[in-house]
Amino acid sequence: MAVAELSCTETATCFRPSQLSLSSSSSSSRFSHHFRRSFRPLPRTRNPTISCSVTSDKVQTPTSVQAETPKGKTECYGVFCLTYDLKAEEETKSWKKLINIAVSGAAGMISNHLLFKIASGEVFGPDQPVALKLLGSERSVQALEGVAMELEDSLFPLLREVSIGTNPYDVFQDAEWALLIGAKPRGPGMERADLLDINGQIFAEQGKALNASASPNVKVIVVGNPCNTNALICMKNAPNIPAKNFHALTRLDENRAKCQLALKAGVFYDQVSNMTIWGNHSTTQVPDFLNARIKGLPVKEVIKDHKWLEEEFTEKVQKRGGALIQKWGRSSAASTAVSIVDAIKSLIIPTPEGDWFSSGVYTNGNPYGIAEDIVFSMPCRSKGDGDYELVKEVIFDDYLLKRIKKTEAELLAEKRCVAHLTGEGIGFCDLPEDTMLPGEM
Amino acid sequence: MAVAELSCTETATCFRPSQLSLSSSSSSSRFSHHFRRSFRPLPRTRNPTISCSVTSDKVQTPTSVQAETPKGKTECYGVFCLTYDLKAEEETKSWKKLINIAVSGAAGMISNHLLFKIASGEVFGPDQPVALKLLGSERSVQALEGVAMELEDSLFPLLREVSIGTNPYDVFQDAEWALLIGAKPRGPGMERADLLDINGQIFAEQGKALNASASPNVKVIVVGNPCNTNALICMKNAPNIPAKNFHALTRLDENRAKCQLALKAGVFYDQVSNMTIWGNHSTTQVPDFLNARIKGLPVKEVIKDHKWLEEEFTEKVQKRGGALIQKWGRSSAASTAVSIVDAIKSLIIPTPEGDWFSSGVYTNGNPYGIAEDIVFSMPCRSKGDGDYELVKEVIFDDYLLKRIKKTEAELLAEKRCVAHLTGEGIGFCDLPEDTMLPGEM
Repeated sequence: MAVAELSCTETATCFRPSQLSLSSSSSSSRFSHHFRRSFRPLPRTRNPTISCSVTSDKVQTPTSVQAETPKGKTECYGVFCLTYDLKAEEETKSWKKLINIAVSGAAGMISNHLLFKIASGEVFGPDQPVALKLLGSERSVQALEGVAMELEDSLFPLLREVSIGTNPYDVFQDAEWALLIGAKPRGPGMERADLLDINGQIFAEQGKALNASASPNVKVIVVGNPCNTNALICMKNAPNIPAKNFHALTRLDENRAKCQLALKAGVFYDQVSNMTIWGNHSTTQVPDFLNARIKGLPVKEVIKDHKWLEEEFTEKVQKRGGALIQKWGRSSAASTAVSIVDAIKSLIIPTPEGDWFSSGVYTNGNPYGIAEDIVFSMPCRSKGDGDYELVKEVIFDDYLLKRIKKTEAELLAEKRCVAHLTGEGIGFCDLPEDTMLPGEM
Repeated sequence: MAVAELSCTETATCFRPSQLSLSSSSSSSRFSHHFRRSFRPLPRTRNPTISCSVTSDKVQTPTSVQAETPKGKTECYGVFCLTYDLKAEEETKSWKKLINIAVSGAAGMISNHLLFKIASGEVFGPDQPVALKLLGSERSVQALEGVAMELEDSLFPLLREVSIGTNPYDVFQDAEWALLIGAKPRGPGMERADLLDINGQIFAEQGKALNASASPNVKVIVVGNPCNTNALICMKNAPNIPAKNFHALTRLDENRAKCQLALKAGVFYDQVSNMTIWGNHSTTQVPDFLNARIKGLPVKEVIKDHKWLEEEFTEKVQKRGGALIQKWGRSSAASTAVSIVDAIKSLIIPTPEGDWFSSGVYTNGNPYGIAEDIVFSMPCRSKGDGDYELVKEVIFDDYLLKRIKKTEAELLAEKRCVAHLTGEGIGFCDLPEDTMLPGEM
């Protein structure tokens, strides 16, 4: 803890990423392959919204705060400002009650795919009217209006409300789903620790806003990277929302893993099931070929090339995003949006008998011996009620356990790095070598 | 015809857009608001694939040609190269027969939305397996692979084949739908006549390819602009395919018109019906508020502000694309893709009783007195069999007729301008002032 002491006073411990500095001990042999970093204090007045304290041993979880701006409705857009009674019309009176879906990073490319899928009824079904609440940055307000205009022009009958805003406290009002896509991409020369802190601050704020404004049972899917730790930060800042409601998206990894196994086995991808991604949405992720099945059989019985499974498969899944950027010139937006749809559907449609899906969820009470109190991708099953349970019928071998340990260690390190954002002390970054997935936001 | 004589020899009349030149008479008072243009001959050897002749008075319709490269399958991609028997699996044996859908401009933004909609089952239904045949340019081959990779990673169960290619004769093989989105955007300083010629050449070639390779009853939707005249050129070069099968997309205009009427009337857009776009997909288009209905009533009975209808409404619809570019920084891709989906669904799902939709279709035999032998947007109804019939129960007034005449005149001028591509003589451009819709491809 020498580093932490070195960088913190007893009174003020608020941090700004611009003031990050490499610890003087970063070149010691013990940390030769690690980036070690801590945070210098900042005068309270400079950044009053983030408050962490080291005055007692027991650090308190941040409590929910009220928005400084008066709470109110976000700005409705155009034709979506109308009020009407769905129960009054023959065609719409059998519809379910309108649900509120908040999307952050709403002017970005992933959202541009996702919003139209939600509005079309593809996600929540043909009798489920939806309200879209779009969160963007000040910089993107015009683009948000453009998105709203295109949604207007698409005449989706189920899309009944669209509102746009830049204040998460307003936009998250009564949200039953929060799809948190917006995140700062890594700038030139930016280390993972910087990224964790910058994005962590965004997700801490959004967690507070969800806690204050959203439906108490809001389901939250974090897509913005580093998504596992962002989800943890968000959850910790929203103590009134069940921890089980927070998800980090590893579904694109799952989908890619299924596709790679299908390709290798020479079967269509619909024949691959029971695919787990364990751990972090990073290069330490563990696509589990021990428990996955092809045509109902263990993968290892179908793919005899075990060397490929152990040495190439995982890398193929991890490197898919980078390979795509090389081909396509930009990162995957369409398939990411598809995987978000898959993740939502997995929670609102009962999981097929015998199968499961992966999601980054809170580890407390997990049956696998994974460290508690992190967000870790694990195999889940749902009754279709928005909730899930962890799958117990999985097996482990040394190879799988060793890999799980590695991704677990990474997530524990990330957690220590953002302790100042989860109310658990002083952020202290001692991260393994850079494991961010390339190009994914 | 002085200009035509000036620019053509009796022997060779192959044209290149780079050799376009303004006629010397372009500044005459008669053409003061017009661009007048004709084409200079090019040595035969320079561009052997386009051949037009003025050696006889009666110019022949171009006949279908065989591809120079051997006809064959396009390159299948990854997991989509597998062969399997859909009838052998319990889940898929009740599915319909696979349909082939060709998409040009497949690496572009509109396609990036559209392809995923088709693959998800949103367009053709949950029991209709699809094969996607992606046409791109040499320059876009890598991006096409990127699209195919994202389609793989999306695990759509209905998407059974994906192939990519740059030769339309290969890609259109057995296509039952051809969605022609790819077109060259206007470069700096390029006049509409240039654009008509450049894109006309693309669509002449694609017409020949459809004629040679596609299913004999292929349905063709032309999106690439200028879409009406591109559709005409495509049709004229595909004499074996029924002329009725060619459509130019005016559905986005229809959708936007409905939205603007809804906004003005203060009703939700699902209350607006019977919306016709007449004529060209350009600023001369005529959104018809005389025949359209709001909550089943004539628009003029609901919107009492007739001045707004006559003076602002049409402009609002026309300028929507430009307004969107200003907000969003790029042209509408998502809502264009939605309108293509709407256009397809209008042909495969019976039109609701009493309603209709707009499509740019061949005018021969039209009941409205519109000039024959052009592609003109008109009100259509379908039994859901892929075919359509023109709606007879429409009324006209002087205002509507005057506007229809103007858009008709424009399309007739465009047709004269591309006569060298439809086999009807010498291209002679005498176009009214520039009426291209801004930013739409």
